[in-house]
Amino acid sequence: MIPSMRLTIFIVIAPVFLFAQGNGSDLAALAQKTFGILPLQMASPENPITPEKAALGKILFYETRISADGTVSCSRCHPLGLYAADGLPMAIGNSCKINPRNAPTILNAAAQISAHWIGNRTSVEDQARQALIGPPSFGMPSYDSAMKVLKAIHGYEPLFKAAFPLDTQPIKEQNFALAVGAFERTLVTPGLFDAFVNGDPDALTPGQKKGLKTFVSEGCASCHSGVYFGGQSYKKFGVSAPYWTFTKSQSPDLGRFVVTGDENDKYVFKVPVLRNVAMTPPYFHDGSVNSLTDAVYIMAKAQLNRTLPGDELKNLMAFLNALTGAIPKQALEVPLLPAREEY
Amino acid sequence: MIPSMRLTIFIVIAPVFLFAQGNGSDLAALAQKTFGILPLQMASPENPITPEKAALGKILFYETRISADGTVSCSRCHPLGLYAADGLPMAIGNSCKINPRNAPTILNAAAQISAHWIGNRTSVEDQARQALIGPPSFGMPSYDSAMKVLKAIHGYEPLFKAAFPLDTQPIKEQNFALAVGAFERTLVTPGLFDAFVNGDPDALTPGQKKGLKTFVSEGCASCHSGVYFGGQSYKKFGVSAPYWTFTKSQSPDLGRFVVTGDENDKYVFKVPVLRNVAMTPPYFHDGSVNSLTDAVYIMAKAQLNRTLPGDELKNLMAFLNALTGAIPKQALEVPLLPAREEY
Repeated sequence: MIPSMRLTIFIVIAPVFLFAQGNGSDLAALAQKTFGILPLQMASPENPITPEKAALGKILFYETRISADGTVSCSRCHPLGLYAADGLPMAIGNSCKINPRNAPTILNAAAQISAHWIGNRTSVEDQARQALIGPPSFGMPSYDSAMKVLKAIHGYEPLFKAAFPLDTQPIKEQNFALAVGAFERTLVTPGLFDAFVNGDPDALTPGQKKGLKTFVSEGCASCHSGVYFGGQSYKKFGVSAPYWTFTKSQSPDLGRFVVTGDENDKYVFKVPVLRNVAMTPPYFHDGSVNSLTDAVYIMAKAQLNRTLPGDELKNLMAFLNALTGAIPKQALEVPLLPAREEY
Repeated sequence: MIPSMRLTIFIVIAPVFLFAQGNGSDLAALAQKTFGILPLQMASPENPITPEKAALGKILFYETRISADGTVSCSRCHPLGLYAADGLPMAIGNSCKINPRNAPTILNAAAQISAHWIGNRTSVEDQARQALIGPPSFGMPSYDSAMKVLKAIHGYEPLFKAAFPLDTQPIKEQNFALAVGAFERTLVTPGLFDAFVNGDPDALTPGQKKGLKTFVSEGCASCHSGVYFGGQSYKKFGVSAPYWTFTKSQSPDLGRFVVTGDENDKYVFKVPVLRNVAMTPPYFHDGSVNSLTDAVYIMAKAQLNRTLPGDELKNLMAFLNALTGAIPKQALEVPLLPAREEY
């Protein structure tokens, strides 16, 4: 065995072993080492968050007038009151067009390697921009047509100017994307898990602590990794058997293969973020499973070929509930949109 | 002339005459006498507002899971960020069904004689309840099916219990209606006009003061009466000529005749509330007119057979903007909805 392999095995095995032993503050320290500390915002060097940009982004998040039938805004499929997911198997966009996949929550989403289940959007900014012309999304015929609407609502001009002071013509789809992205980058939701990691040993119940240990020892954390519990890699769904044998999905989805054309990417999806998972049913890329217990049971079966015992499942469920977090207060204040005056 | 007729004429003529003379505090006093003082809430003996009921109502206002396609909530057609109107000519409900008329704002709406343009709902509570099974609205097959969804979301039980402590089975459509109605009854929006009436002579610009006088002297206030500037009576739209000759509406709407079957009610509609009118285009029962200037011009032509001179129109526009008000802060905070857990 070459030394680097030995080191890799040690790094993978050691925390799992230590987790099995840990309990109070030692467990918290291990969890912090394994998952990290939640930042206040999901910063990006390409899109620095400014108050003006995030404020404009929040307004645009509710803007329906830039959709083909006037009913779609970002908020339509990501309503904050439902933890920024719409509760539907697959999102329904303009003119009742059904999207190909489930709308994931946008909470804690901006730090992922990409956006969408198959990673066909490079970032939340890219997602926001392309949504404008996405046929089952906003469905506008062109970026220009969407921007024309924003330009006709005169109240937007000073808002875009303030958010993008160096631009002489700030109302453009790139800035729409940056503004909405800046708002989304503020949507970090600390929960009980974070309170535990940050030093409150009683923030988690004994069952939740057991669930945390199981989450690591069973191998969930190897994919649902990092401080957002996912969003960092692509993995095949259905390792032990095709995923639809478990989910009972009607029409199999080729997954990331659609993007890359690589045979190895068949049935490969981005590992979803698990923060607020208890609040955002239904589950999986096609919303084929309604219950979180079923979803966890299926994941263990499909990915690890493991039948979880009832008590482990129960503790895992308790732990996943500790990933429900607080949406920033400011994000929950509905902004007033500028009026479409004379037109 | 009998004495009571003389008195009536005096009551109608006197304020109009006085308005023409008034200016600062005398104008404010006259406006207060003519329109009244805006209350803090639109109270109803049938539905007393309690904090628990209004809080539940605000949650239910965002509830999409009780609609046929899972996309419709009260907020869909009455988004608060757009002053609780959807900006569409006619509201689009579940499964893209188009409603027969424009969705009016629900701000300052609860004190009207009825709900909907033709008064086919007795109150905001009646409107909220019937929306659940309205085919182009939420479109649920029955009240029971809607309540079944709410009952399955276990987080609703304590909320309904708290709002309706005397009910043993509080989750029922009547209480859905009362809760949503209680929330709506808090949606009073004081604006510059109210600041003026309440003692700040500089709250209105000279143009707005002129507009206020014109609003009364031209006769607008005789229908758009009371502290909400409308909502208190039904009137025929198109007195000087059929309304569609002005609005260019494609298919004439029989109006309140649909409800009463009375020939006199043909083309009769509820006089709409003008508060926040500048923020809630498009205009009229069919959203046939986009610009407020056009709408005011049309009203003078259609109702009073009067061609408004440009300066009067301009002042009226300025005055109508003074009816834009502040939505209560609490109403603008998005509530978190209980999760649909295992189902």
